[in-house]
Amino acid sequence: MTPILDLTQLTTRAPAGFHKRETQRELERIRQELVTWQERLYAENRRSILIVLQGMDASGKDGLIRSVFSGLNPQGVEVHSFKEPTHDELAHDFLWRIHQRTPPKGMIHVFNRSHYEDVLITRVLGLVGAAEARRRFARINDFEQLLQQAGTTILKFYLHVSEEEQRKRLLERVHDPAKQWKYEAGDEDKAQQWPEYRAVYEDVFRHCSPAEAPWHIVPADQNWYKAYVVAATLRDTLAQMNPDFPASKAERPA
Amino acid sequence: MTPILDLTQLTTRAPAGFHKRETQRELERIRQELVTWQERLYAENRRSILIVLQGMDASGKDGLIRSVFSGLNPQGVEVHSFKEPTHDELAHDFLWRIHQRTPPKGMIHVFNRSHYEDVLITRVLGLVGAAEARRRFARINDFEQLLQQAGTTILKFYLHVSEEEQRKRLLERVHDPAKQWKYEAGDEDKAQQWPEYRAVYEDVFRHCSPAEAPWHIVPADQNWYKAYVVAATLRDTLAQMNPDFPASKAERPA
Repeated sequence: MTPILDLTQLTTRAPAGFHKRETQRELERIRQELVTWQERLYAENRRSILIVLQGMDASGKDGLIRSVFSGLNPQGVEVHSFKEPTHDELAHDFLWRIHQRTPPKGMIHVFNRSHYEDVLITRVLGLVGAAEARRRFARINDFEQLLQQAGTTILKFYLHVSEEEQRKRLLERVHDPAKQWKYEAGDEDKAQQWPEYRAVYEDVFRHCSPAEAPWHIVPADQNWYKAYVVAATLRDTLAQMNPDFPASKAERPA
Repeated sequence: MTPILDLTQLTTRAPAGFHKRETQRELERIRQELVTWQERLYAENRRSILIVLQGMDASGKDGLIRSVFSGLNPQGVEVHSFKEPTHDELAHDFLWRIHQRTPPKGMIHVFNRSHYEDVLITRVLGLVGAAEARRRFARINDFEQLLQQAGTTILKFYLHVSEEEQRKRLLERVHDPAKQWKYEAGDEDKAQQWPEYRAVYEDVFRHCSPAEAPWHIVPADQNWYKAYVVAATLRDTLAQMNPDFPASKAERPA
């Protein structure tokens, strides 16, 4: 078991030495590298990447996807958002709908929310108790192992916003015309729930952090820094995997 | 680990005391009971049953499905056959296509061949070695546990035919006009492979027999006996689960 992780002790801001302009320029360079790496992963057609994005409301998941993945070839990248489960989905185990959307060889899939919601919001709403959560943690670890054995690398990111920053962003949804479409009834309550979400997230990090698929806790109060961290982690992972173009199947003309 | 099971020590014929006519009449009675139980399971809409049918070629899986399940309401019973995987299926982990066909609440699904093929024929063909088989056994056990936790009862049947009976049936496919459509190139070779299949089946029984989902080894040289055993086991399982019609949601008129 991982030692207890206390989210309130982890910064939500960029470390000293990171400056917005420079970091954004660096992000631009990394995105160019990602274009090449993704092309090689697709051509190699042997392995895949699953990116799991989690974070409290208003932690900036949608914006992050836009900043990091725009520019990649959409033929090799798919984003899957998991909302409230449908009637059919609820009639199966909680991983049924998730498994259908796992990446085939050559692909990068981004999960905007994921199977982890089934041990997060469900717990805050009181639909899932501690004992059921323990069972689900075990099944989630099994499931991720299944994917890994089939050649999928899993990157899990938690976008870590502070209670204050979250409140500020939820308020903006009320007042900023460009953000009002995101406003949902109950957004005011969500700002009250930061401590409850914090507790269930900490439980996830404690039970679902095997060495092969750890959680990356990303300081997320500043959008430019969080995009940089996710992009750099993905780039480093791809460089490590080092996918390559396969040899041509055709004979070369003499 | 389960003690080593030796298929050659297990009979492939009905025990003394079972006679064809009486057993067939008893099967008819059981099928009537199954009609009622299936209706209650469907109406209750809380739990489900997965029946996994495995057996060597010519062990009589298709015939068994016809004898046991004809007469049930097809709205509540689905048969899923797993043939050679498609290109898309091979691009995912070996349980991906299986998971999509697991039963939702209220349903009985019959798998005519199953995820176990990925540790059976694949091993006989030399596509999967012993180490990979071990890893897959673990993932299969995890997967079945996931389904069980979500309310699925799993019944696994191995239709046990003798080497002689299998050879006889494969020969019939060559000569009997009603069976020729089942003949496939290589059927003669299959009759030679009984010992190889025996070995990989024994390995499955050894590693994938948790207390909650044991294998039922069904003597299968006589079609009437094997249908009786499967039907009776399903009936006993349903009686144990004891599904009931839910209370009406509407007010009764006074």
